[in-house]
Amino acid sequence: MTAQPDLTADQTADQTPANGGKITISVDAMGGDAGPTAVVAGIELSAKAYDDIAFVLHGPVEQLEPLVAKRRVLQGRVVFSDARDVVTMDDKPAHVMRNGKGTSMWSSLETLRSGEAAGAVSCGNTGALMAISMIRLRKLPGVNRPAIAILFPSRNPQGFNVMLDVGADVRADSPDLLQFALMGASYARNGLDLDRPRVGLLNVGTEEHKGRAELKEAHALITGHDAANFDFVGFVEGSDITSDRVDVIVTDGFTGNVAIKTGEGTASLIGDLLRQAFRHSIMSRIASVLALSTMFRLKQRIDPRRVNGGVFLGLNGIVVKSHGGADATGVAAAVGLAYRLAKSGFAAKLAARVAKTGNPAEQADNGQAE
Amino acid sequence: MTAQPDLTADQTADQTPANGGKITISVDAMGGDAGPTAVVAGIELSAKAYDDIAFVLHGPVEQLEPLVAKRRVLQGRVVFSDARDVVTMDDKPAHVMRNGKGTSMWSSLETLRSGEAAGAVSCGNTGALMAISMIRLRKLPGVNRPAIAILFPSRNPQGFNVMLDVGADVRADSPDLLQFALMGASYARNGLDLDRPRVGLLNVGTEEHKGRAELKEAHALITGHDAANFDFVGFVEGSDITSDRVDVIVTDGFTGNVAIKTGEGTASLIGDLLRQAFRHSIMSRIASVLALSTMFRLKQRIDPRRVNGGVFLGLNGIVVKSHGGADATGVAAAVGLAYRLAKSGFAAKLAARVAKTGNPAEQADNGQAE
Repeated sequence: MTAQPDLTADQTADQTPANGGKITISVDAMGGDAGPTAVVAGIELSAKAYDDIAFVLHGPVEQLEPLVAKRRVLQGRVVFSDARDVVTMDDKPAHVMRNGKGTSMWSSLETLRSGEAAGAVSCGNTGALMAISMIRLRKLPGVNRPAIAILFPSRNPQGFNVMLDVGADVRADSPDLLQFALMGASYARNGLDLDRPRVGLLNVGTEEHKGRAELKEAHALITGHDAANFDFVGFVEGSDITSDRVDVIVTDGFTGNVAIKTGEGTASLIGDLLRQAFRHSIMSRIASVLALSTMFRLKQRIDPRRVNGGVFLGLNGIVVKSHGGADATGVAAAVGLAYRLAKSGFAAKLAARVAKTGNPAEQADNGQAE
Repeated sequence: MTAQPDLTADQTADQTPANGGKITISVDAMGGDAGPTAVVAGIELSAKAYDDIAFVLHGPVEQLEPLVAKRRVLQGRVVFSDARDVVTMDDKPAHVMRNGKGTSMWSSLETLRSGEAAGAVSCGNTGALMAISMIRLRKLPGVNRPAIAILFPSRNPQGFNVMLDVGADVRADSPDLLQFALMGASYARNGLDLDRPRVGLLNVGTEEHKGRAELKEAHALITGHDAANFDFVGFVEGSDITSDRVDVIVTDGFTGNVAIKTGEGTASLIGDLLRQAFRHSIMSRIASVLALSTMFRLKQRIDPRRVNGGVFLGLNGIVVKSHGGADATGVAAAVGLAYRLAKSGFAAKLAARVAKTGNPAEQADNGQAE
């Protein structure tokens, strides 16, 4: 196993993608449930938030131009890339890979690939976006499986934990899980400003004898890896995803996807039951009026739109998948995330980080207990 | 594949285990975090709720007798079974299997095995309880992997959905998932009084091409099985665990365990944030006083103690695992569940149900698409 400490990989600034001093984000305007109107309203919010942001906007130009023309803050900051086709939510990834060249999604990734943009954002079909990203951007050297990382509300001071993979692939072998640990730690450093993120491996118990074989192997691999920029806390459980025991939760894309959707479903059920409970009597209706600002504060704290954006890790380039149902606030959150990661030089840092681990297959051979 | 419709297996009454007209539940008094005091207080609540319930209580008799003597409703309804040893939460299942004969947990399962009781309840170590249950009660003919089923709060009229497996085994092959579907449906009929429960298979998407290979196989197996007493709704997602699209969620014990703990963690985080939010200002403090009964109603609705009890399915006998931290209310819920299932003749119905499916390995061979 390579064991060179690498204290600088995440800390050196690298060339910030420059475009007349601007950070350019490539944005797929189509494919979201709310259409290009929400996307353009979202980039308007981002343009107000960041002076040095610019956009390449992909879609039917005759639809996009009038939407942009209405918004003064966007003047001179948007380049249009005319794309006639749209990837729908029902399109199968394999179909899009063969026939998707004319789509706004494909076009948005080409702009990232060519270096004209420093990050790409799409609200479209996740499977198709990952499939095109894999073939056009290609995986980073040393990465076998890319992962999608999201932020999940937690008790930590930063308000969120990083979880990956939440759905890039339904499987992950132990070397993949080591890569996820490294990539997740790097993302937490750059996305959440944590100096030494604590990384945990999701399992059904915290004792070392529990769980599936690949998890015991991954535990040994991550323990054996000379972790210069994170602390490995070992196994964590489902209840730790929202806890302050850990900052980064590592799991396969099947388990991660089920877990985040279970969390979302639970939160949504509680919200609805709360509303029902407040409608129950006159007293509770009065309470609900007085509690409005309280509820608003709570909602702000856990509002999924605030952290809208699954980041694809392990590719040559930063791709942020926004929720398909994102409104302007959600789109702005995803664009803002792509912007901040681009500005921090995250893509190059991540590449340096995983390159240092060498070939994951070798790691597996050396790291396994028997 | 056997395809005989079996309309009667769940509907015929079978011999209710009788003991002077009483339903006897074997209760492990030790091993829970709150000790025998909470357990005896719990069976007192159950004795008040059910006229025809009786108990065999396992543990150090000199500790148990004084606790029982104080409670008038328990007089003449408790038989003591002296057991000196206790299985702790840290004991490994393999160790308990070799050395556990003198424990209250082992003793409580022997009473079930001998037919002196119609159900068993323990607050102790889940892994040890499953391990002893497997060797002493043995699996039902036709069952490869037993499963632990729990109730999870949902939007359904019955207030809960059944989910299994939540931790008996970290793996499940496609024939196991078929068995889980049959056992879960039978449990929903007897535990939730649903005539035709809707059964879903947990996956990362509802489209048939998604997910792991064993899930696609299981989808074909369950679709191909002549389901006389349930409706198969196909794949469901994590967000459906709390939904009204489905009554029974089938998954492997790894995914199920992570999902329920994620749901619990999310609910607990929201509860804490809600309390914080209400403490924020004078207005919100007033609102919180007015909202007290509202919050109490909500808490009642999703109180995990109300549905405390993981049921072991696929064994010769009904074993209910109560939460280790259960108080009297929690113990009473678990005991009440064991009592109701015993009274309905559930064990015999379940055995008839899975016996009809024949050898699961054969099912796999016949049911796979290619």
